[in-house]
Amino acid sequence: MRAGVIGIGAMGMGVAKRLLARGCAVSVRDVRREAEEEARAAGAAVCAAPAEVAAACPVVVTLVVDARQTEEVVFGPRGVVEGMAPGGVLVMCSTVSPEFSGPLAARLGRHGILALDAPVSGGPARALDGTMSMMIAGAPAAYDAARAVLEAISGRRFHVGTRTGDGSRMKLVNNLMAGINLAAACEGLVFGLKLGLDPRTILEVVSASSGASWAAGDRLPRVLAGDYSPRAAVDILAKDLGLALETGAAARAALPIGAAARQSFIATAALGHGQEDDAAVAKYYARVAGVALPAPERR
Amino acid sequence: MRAGVIGIGAMGMGVAKRLLARGCAVSVRDVRREAEEEARAAGAAVCAAPAEVAAACPVVVTLVVDARQTEEVVFGPRGVVEGMAPGGVLVMCSTVSPEFSGPLAARLGRHGILALDAPVSGGPARALDGTMSMMIAGAPAAYDAARAVLEAISGRRFHVGTRTGDGSRMKLVNNLMAGINLAAACEGLVFGLKLGLDPRTILEVVSASSGASWAAGDRLPRVLAGDYSPRAAVDILAKDLGLALETGAAARAALPIGAAARQSFIATAALGHGQEDDAAVAKYYARVAGVALPAPERR
Repeated sequence: MRAGVIGIGAMGMGVAKRLLARGCAVSVRDVRREAEEEARAAGAAVCAAPAEVAAACPVVVTLVVDARQTEEVVFGPRGVVEGMAPGGVLVMCSTVSPEFSGPLAARLGRHGILALDAPVSGGPARALDGTMSMMIAGAPAAYDAARAVLEAISGRRFHVGTRTGDGSRMKLVNNLMAGINLAAACEGLVFGLKLGLDPRTILEVVSASSGASWAAGDRLPRVLAGDYSPRAAVDILAKDLGLALETGAAARAALPIGAAARQSFIATAALGHGQEDDAAVAKYYARVAGVALPAPERR
Repeated sequence: MRAGVIGIGAMGMGVAKRLLARGCAVSVRDVRREAEEEARAAGAAVCAAPAEVAAACPVVVTLVVDARQTEEVVFGPRGVVEGMAPGGVLVMCSTVSPEFSGPLAARLGRHGILALDAPVSGGPARALDGTMSMMIAGAPAAYDAARAVLEAISGRRFHVGTRTGDGSRMKLVNNLMAGINLAAACEGLVFGLKLGLDPRTILEVVSASSGASWAAGDRLPRVLAGDYSPRAAVDILAKDLGLALETGAAARAALPIGAAARQSFIATAALGHGQEDDAAVAKYYARVAGVALPAPERR
């Protein structure tokens, strides 16, 4: 098995190391030299450009930040399309607009390259241990050609459609709900604090009641611990919600609660917390309500 | 064991029957004759007024609709305070404003009666089988005096505070999150439908991803089945969210996402769905977006 990973940030590095651990020959490329050195030390071959990665590998995973970067590493100078042999597969894992990922199959098809629109979920730890989930859209032939790599890097794969774009659409639907649920959890927590309730009791009751959500269960313990080291940053979620809202606007789907939730994350960033964990939206609510959040635990 | 139940609607009837099933002597009172007849057939003693229920029972559970009705059955003509012997306990289970439930302990204390502010969660089926959960606030002496009854009628009890009012506060915090999460789930589902995604795939992916919530997992299957028979009605959730918003306004806790969510339920009721299951908020989103929801399954 031979695979390339372009964009070895937190997620991409996890994927590259996971592939190496499964005995795969891995080629990588990143704009940051230190990330490339870390991958090289783990056993990856470092290439000078995306085209070189693509020339060496029949399956290339891109995990760069956004559509602009994906466009550059795939279609830009010395990009994937310049190096990849016909029949190769591009597995595009970034969260992007369906307006970008939709035409990807046709654009790559002109070069004889197959395409999967395959956003991921689960965070760096699950990328590293191969248990992240993927929402995969694309032609069956593309899926079959990438199957071994997909199965190596993910614990759960949802086939959400045969047209590229549907992976992005599903990711935006999920992230819309996740973002709202997270803001709701923090809005509710601070509401309870303002009413004089104990934060640990709030978490205990809500977790066992109809107000429960994955977002509340995952993020409120961070708020209670005063731990805002970023697993997923406020700025990223504000960006994802913005992408959902723009996609909704283009499709004529009104998302009033999503719009309200996004404002909470924008306000949180405005208070200087954009690079903190997205649980920091609780800080915005607490600031507005004039209540104190639990202080960080002593280490 | 001897206990009274005042207000035998869906929840109260479940509680009364559960107590009877556990061998408890039960006295009931309701304004609807047919509910009283159903309870009598199940083995309960039917009383002519709340005062009679209270005279017969050291523990009385009220499960009427709101604070106005609670005020009437407890403090009104032939109310609980006129019949209950000193040392008796009123277990107030309705979802009410903390402005009403807060002073309850002091008001009843003047009559020598103990008070618990104990909103319930879980719906009629769990009331009937004794597994509903309770958020209980009140003095330890009140809790001890009612303990056997509380343990008979609930599967899980959260002691949220020693002052009446805290039960209501916790319930409003939970219902705020539940209401937002439900509206978010329906907003996201319809967003996905508008983008051309398959509804069953959306539910499957979201349930296993960061967008998961209790509300999505419980209500979206109803939307997919086209089943809007009311387990919890739109009007009730709109009322509960209104109570949360008023309580937040009085305490100076801004709840912008809760406010947006409430508008969705109000709009749903305005479209004529107020008495349907609260999952019908999906109908409002679908109407606005111009997409069709799954039709009811043939029976």
